[in-house]
Amino acid sequence: MAKIETIRHSLSHIMAAAVKSLYPDVKFGIGPAIENGFYYDFDLKITISPEDLPKIEEKMREIIKQGALFKKKEVSKKEAKKVFKKQPYKLELIGEMSTSAKASADKKGKTVTIYETSNFIDLCKGPHIKSTKEIPSDAFKLTKIAGAYWRGDEKRPMLTRIYGVAFKTKKELEDYLKQIEESEKRDHRVLGKRLELFLIDEEFGPGLPLWPPKGAILRKIVMDFALNTYLKRGYQLVATPHIANLKLWKTSGHTDFYKESMFPPMHMREIAREEKDDYQLKPMNCPGHVKIYSSKIRSYRDLPLRFTEMGTVYRYERSGTLHGLTRVRGFTQDDAHLFCTPEQLHSELLEMIDLTIYILKSFGFKDFNVSLSVHDPKNKEKYLGSDKIWKLAEKALENALKTKKLSYTRYTGEAVFYGPKIDFLISDAIGREWQLTTIQVDFNFPEKFDLNYIDKKGKKKRPIMLHRALLGSLERFIGVLIEHYGGAFPLWLAPIQFVVIPVGSRHQKYAKQVGKILKEQNLRVEVQDEAETVSKKIREAEVQKIPYMLVVGDKEMKTKSVRVRKREKGDMGIIKLTKFLEKAKKEIETKK
Amino acid sequence: MAKIETIRHSLSHIMAAAVKSLYPDVKFGIGPAIENGFYYDFDLKITISPEDLPKIEEKMREIIKQGALFKKKEVSKKEAKKVFKKQPYKLELIGEMSTSAKASADKKGKTVTIYETSNFIDLCKGPHIKSTKEIPSDAFKLTKIAGAYWRGDEKRPMLTRIYGVAFKTKKELEDYLKQIEESEKRDHRVLGKRLELFLIDEEFGPGLPLWPPKGAILRKIVMDFALNTYLKRGYQLVATPHIANLKLWKTSGHTDFYKESMFPPMHMREIAREEKDDYQLKPMNCPGHVKIYSSKIRSYRDLPLRFTEMGTVYRYERSGTLHGLTRVRGFTQDDAHLFCTPEQLHSELLEMIDLTIYILKSFGFKDFNVSLSVHDPKNKEKYLGSDKIWKLAEKALENALKTKKLSYTRYTGEAVFYGPKIDFLISDAIGREWQLTTIQVDFNFPEKFDLNYIDKKGKKKRPIMLHRALLGSLERFIGVLIEHYGGAFPLWLAPIQFVVIPVGSRHQKYAKQVGKILKEQNLRVEVQDEAETVSKKIREAEVQKIPYMLVVGDKEMKTKSVRVRKREKGDMGIIKLTKFLEKAKKEIETKK
Repeated sequence: MAKIETIRHSLSHIMAAAVKSLYPDVKFGIGPAIENGFYYDFDLKITISPEDLPKIEEKMREIIKQGALFKKKEVSKKEAKKVFKKQPYKLELIGEMSTSAKASADKKGKTVTIYETSNFIDLCKGPHIKSTKEIPSDAFKLTKIAGAYWRGDEKRPMLTRIYGVAFKTKKELEDYLKQIEESEKRDHRVLGKRLELFLIDEEFGPGLPLWPPKGAILRKIVMDFALNTYLKRGYQLVATPHIANLKLWKTSGHTDFYKESMFPPMHMREIAREEKDDYQLKPMNCPGHVKIYSSKIRSYRDLPLRFTEMGTVYRYERSGTLHGLTRVRGFTQDDAHLFCTPEQLHSELLEMIDLTIYILKSFGFKDFNVSLSVHDPKNKEKYLGSDKIWKLAEKALENALKTKKLSYTRYTGEAVFYGPKIDFLISDAIGREWQLTTIQVDFNFPEKFDLNYIDKKGKKKRPIMLHRALLGSLERFIGVLIEHYGGAFPLWLAPIQFVVIPVGSRHQKYAKQVGKILKEQNLRVEVQDEAETVSKKIREAEVQKIPYMLVVGDKEMKTKSVRVRKREKGDMGIIKLTKFLEKAKKEIETKK
Repeated sequence: MAKIETIRHSLSHIMAAAVKSLYPDVKFGIGPAIENGFYYDFDLKITISPEDLPKIEEKMREIIKQGALFKKKEVSKKEAKKVFKKQPYKLELIGEMSTSAKASADKKGKTVTIYETSNFIDLCKGPHIKSTKEIPSDAFKLTKIAGAYWRGDEKRPMLTRIYGVAFKTKKELEDYLKQIEESEKRDHRVLGKRLELFLIDEEFGPGLPLWPPKGAILRKIVMDFALNTYLKRGYQLVATPHIANLKLWKTSGHTDFYKESMFPPMHMREIAREEKDDYQLKPMNCPGHVKIYSSKIRSYRDLPLRFTEMGTVYRYERSGTLHGLTRVRGFTQDDAHLFCTPEQLHSELLEMIDLTIYILKSFGFKDFNVSLSVHDPKNKEKYLGSDKIWKLAEKALENALKTKKLSYTRYTGEAVFYGPKIDFLISDAIGREWQLTTIQVDFNFPEKFDLNYIDKKGKKKRPIMLHRALLGSLERFIGVLIEHYGGAFPLWLAPIQFVVIPVGSRHQKYAKQVGKILKEQNLRVEVQDEAETVSKKIREAEVQKIPYMLVVGDKEMKTKSVRVRKREKGDMGIIKLTKFLEKAKKEIETKK
């Protein structure tokens, strides 16, 4: 079988042939293979809609069935211009070919390659399959229509781009379509809006999420769980400002190695003559934690020191790359920096890996891959410090992974400017991978900031520094959580855990009582009191993905019970309120 | 008796006379009365130190005893120049008098006023007392020496400034000196350093506190208590970014009315050509909360909505005005914004006042004064909106204070640009007043941001907005807390609540067990394991102001007990660990 990329490319020609049959006066742009499929740009006299796609697909299958050949020909540019005389876009391309090395012309620019299939001739370098018979006709699908400027230039005509996806087998196509459908259903931007979890406000600016109540409480639950876990495991809370004098970022090396990701400085002289300095938003929390370390003399007895902070950092990202919560300009890291002796490094790394796995499992992530990003010795200007120090740091991470028997992929040149790192790539419920956790070994910052501790013999020694964020960015993590659960959070995470639904107005008082009892137990509950039918209220609660609906009518009122409906599962019967509370609390505790 | 200000001024002359007796070749600068006392600037050939002050004081008392008169004379400028021919600073002043309206010359600038007391003649407008007999000679004290440039100009000579304090009675002086001594002992900058609660780092910048572990945990306890209280009382958590596009601050009116307090903008074009906008650090959280309000349609049924956020804001303050934690450039507000109908306004304000009193009492503040700051109708350019709206808002606050029977002082022109406010001025343990809580009524932001809700009849209505921060700035609040308690925090607030001290090395294991048991109960405990004497460890714990020291030796080990030492109180005897835990938990619960 031909390469899938070749099949995809050939399918774009077949689509062009089909479109030509259906709309004879079409003008053709270009039609390449892309990831998972292909597209072709058409200049059509009429507007087509998604409803037209099956018709085009049908025509394509017809052509495929005919077993049309892909006939390759070398022709002179002059001849080509004749062939494409009614195709202005192709003529434009031919016109440029003598000056362009990339074009489908021979080295001297005298001949060009064309392909003929069915009724369609294209200016194209290939390669293509030999015959349409090589195409599995049940493994492709046209998916969408979009507008695209000719050559991406907004001053040129807007063409109609038709996208298709194509695979080697029907099974692969179906799997792919299912995952796309599943991904769309789980899109955290859509769910974030519907479930009121976050919002991006244009007046605030792109990449700066705001958290309305339901999202803010979810974020707090996630943060509290992580922070309390860290504090129990010997971490100490610290807090540092969001801005610092530019001097600090010079000392840390950020202005040399990280400038592109930093917001522009605030020039204090713009507001006060006596102020000479520039200030800058923090893109990382490390310098703040370093300053707390160096604020007093440290002894070997104090080490390891583990400083943690839910630190909000700001990094510049081009607006085109921003995406919901998973790519933003402002985010909060569950950050920590550890300072230890060389003897403590290995065991600290092992504990950190254990902690990572515990935290991720608590949120329902069970599968992950590990990557080890090391520096590129050929690209020294990208990194602080000597090769020797880098090797030590890289070895430490490698040893920890080996001890933990974790297999990993090594990436050269992907390290941070101050040290190598381990990343955890987490698989979500539908098998997509997300990079969350990062663990970094750093011999350079302690050097730059002249950090010390006094060893047993009373001598000054240099500590080793570890940087790590286990959830990574809270914003990104919550984005991934939303997609992982499709918005249907387990009880311990659900912003609203219970909704109490009175059957009629005479049950409202009891409904409120139930609500009050739950609230007193620090549970998150809403009591419905609007004059709507029970079934409508249940439907609403299902849309809002609330884990439990507690319906109360005469019988429930009399027996101090609730009729429990579980999200997605339906009616679970009547149960005493006290008993239900017990069960619910256990469910929360076990994070199921 | 003469006015105290007059006595203070006359004392500065007497000090000058005394200095002249002791150092005959002294040249005189100026010597005014100031708050609580007076000073005089001298150009001395020799350096004097605080040890010289009693000698000067003694000389002053001698002069007072003599009953010297203050003789006032009008003399021509020419004559004055003769009198002061050896006093260059006075000659400089006389030289300027014809052009200065404020100087002690008559309207035509022909004569000047001089005062003669004892051996000292001064160029001075007065008024003064008649005779030194009017001065209570046991109610003043010279307090310190400082350098001061002549006329505050760093290019002119540095003079020696001697400060004194003076009151009407000995009792008043003693009270004042005691309060000063007490204030110095409680200085949160000194305690903050000694107890490792916060630090200011020069490389980060002034007014930007960093929180090492003990301070960060104290801050978390304060925040958690406040936030959990608000959530229980019907507030909803939200979260908003620290920066926003400048557009937002234009819409909100901050760039028109609050510009001086804002950090300079970040010009995005400095880092990316395609970015045209400016971004700015938030000086307030209100616009963020407004955006969350307006992100969906609100019904009268949803109101009141109470959004709260521990929101970190940044405001520019001149570096000279910064002071420890109580005046900073970056601080976190326990902020909230309420949106309600006109009918709900009064009851919301009453609830807010109750909540304020509950919160402040929980932290040990019992006495407070209330101020009502209203707009100045003569200074319209300082405020948003119409007089009519301002009157409504001011009336609402006034009515709430009246209903609560709280007396208040009215300050015209002290309102915020968008609305009037109530401030709570809290008295601390030594009677100083601190402004913490602020409650503001705002009819203007809802107008500016076009906020609506749908009323019962389905019509669009404008909500009223309340801004309030009960602790105010967390940084400032914690600064005040440190001074209020002199660093000796009650058990529930203490960063380290318990220290376990083993008598000998064979008790270390048991000490660690005790530590573990306490930690499991979420108590904050340190276990001492250094080889030092028990008494030294106790002394250290007292310096660190740790509420409880638990000493463990043979007997305690055998009986599963601890010997309890309470901070400042000393030995409380041996008590079973389980029993002690019970007592401690009760103490924490009651916030005693």
